Amino acid sequence: MKSVLLIGIGSGHPEQITIQAVKALNRASVFFLLDKGRAKEELVQLRKDICERYIEQPGYRLVQVSDPLREENEDSYEAGVERWHAQRAGLFARLIDEELADGECGAFLVWGEPGLYDSTLRVLERVVDLGGPPFEVEVIPGISSVQALAARHRVPLNRIGEPIRITTGRRLAAADLDNVVVMLDAHCAFGQFLDQTLEIYWGAYLGTEDELLVSGQLHEVHGKIRELREEARQRKGWIMDTYLLRRPLKS
Amino acid sequence: MKSVLLIGIGSGHPEQITIQAVKALNRASVFFLLDKGRAKEELVQLRKDICERYIEQPGYRLVQVSDPLREENEDSYEAGVERWHAQRAGLFARLIDEELADGECGAFLVWGEPGLYDSTLRVLERVVDLGGPPFEVEVIPGISSVQALAARHRVPLNRIGEPIRITTGRRLAAADLDNVVVMLDAHCAFGQFLDQTLEIYWGAYLGTEDELLVSGQLHEVHGKIRELREEARQRKGWIMDTYLLRRPLKS
Repeated sequence: MKSVLLIGIGSGHPEQITIQAVKALNRASVFFLLDKGRAKEELVQLRKDICERYIEQPGYRLVQVSDPLREENEDSYEAGVERWHAQRAGLFARLIDEELADGECGAFLVWGEPGLYDSTLRVLERVVDLGGPPFEVEVIPGISSVQALAARHRVPLNRIGEPIRITTGRRLAAADLDNVVVMLDAHCAFGQFLDQTLEIYWGAYLGTEDELLVSGQLHEVHGKIRELREEARQRKGWIMDTYLLRRPLKS
Repeated sequence: MKSVLLIGIGSGHPEQITIQAVKALNRASVFFLLDKGRAKEELVQLRKDICERYIEQPGYRLVQVSDPLREENEDSYEAGVERWHAQRAGLFARLIDEELADGECGAFLVWGEPGLYDSTLRVLERVVDLGGPPFEVEVIPGISSVQALAARHRVPLNRIGEPIRITTGRRLAAADLDNVVVMLDAHCAFGQFLDQTLEIYWGAYLGTEDELLVSGQLHEVHGKIRELREEARQRKGWIMDTYLLRRPLKS
């Protein structure tokens, strides 16, 4: 049978990868590199660097393909995601069919944690549902940008005994503000809450040499975050950032 | 200056530790091993095994101390935690003062992710507040049991575009049930919700040779989880488990 590994490779720091992931890299003979848009070149290169650094046997193959773009002009967010996942499932099915021989092991290198706001696993489930030849799937966890953020700011993700919310910029709501981690926020959703007393811990390109970190009272540092973010996005052509918003505890 | 490393060592699988953590293990010369209750011996041994497996230079020192027990008969949960953290801060201050020479590097090995329901970082902040000689703190992220759970069940933690809630058994509430990860649940809090249509993905001793995994409809598998859990807890004297509860999507 063919097998497919989803390997979490961390969020940018080349040593934030587990021994388990390094061993998994060495089991695969084909690596699927998918990217899109302006980030493409640099993010593909970072994954090639990880392969070169950690794979001991030569002879592995890189299969670089363009990821379909998710279209924004759909009826709804859900319809857009549905269409995009269907396109990706078709692409992944073709890759597994054409690029992997029977008994061969292929791998997708996933930024951060494969279980956290990444669709590769979900899309592979759709490929299974398409009913082609069976293949095995194995998931190797990775350090997410949320964890890299907390470590660099030396701040616990949860407050004592309290729940944690992880959400997207699109879904960030006033009800979350006691303690919330925000991912995938292209529009600085924190800007809606400048009238509230909140602490923010923000980071971009975590663990890389471009890393940016800002923390403080939201109403004092939001402008600095926007400036740094926009300057970096212009300069590099892409940005990956995340932040923790927290209402101070009453004492 | 003295320095203290908080090293996330994963949730049990000896290879779910990052290269960054392995390098950090090799920077420290003193390791503080704290544990309490019946789990003590085995959990201390697992950390000794990690040191032996990954530290290349001999001559490091293990300092094994009993962690204060959190008392249950306090006025409130918060008061109990407050008292426990104060006791731990006193202990940690003494360890840093007496066991580390100036310029030396000590390490706490933290199960899972140091930012997620672990008090070591918070207690170290209290030590700083006590006003003794300054020391540096560095946090190295680790794979949490939540991530190990999702990987072993091959299930994404979030549903498409939706938030994730991570909470404790004590705080699990009906409002969370769309999609919630539960940690630190000694009392099978899922038992409150057997009248609802929910899927559960449960795991214990994740990544170890004792690993237990159960998934299915909550009303069908809750008895099996309780049985396995109780049998294992009796046999081993301790259990670490976690689960994902999810309401099926309407289609």
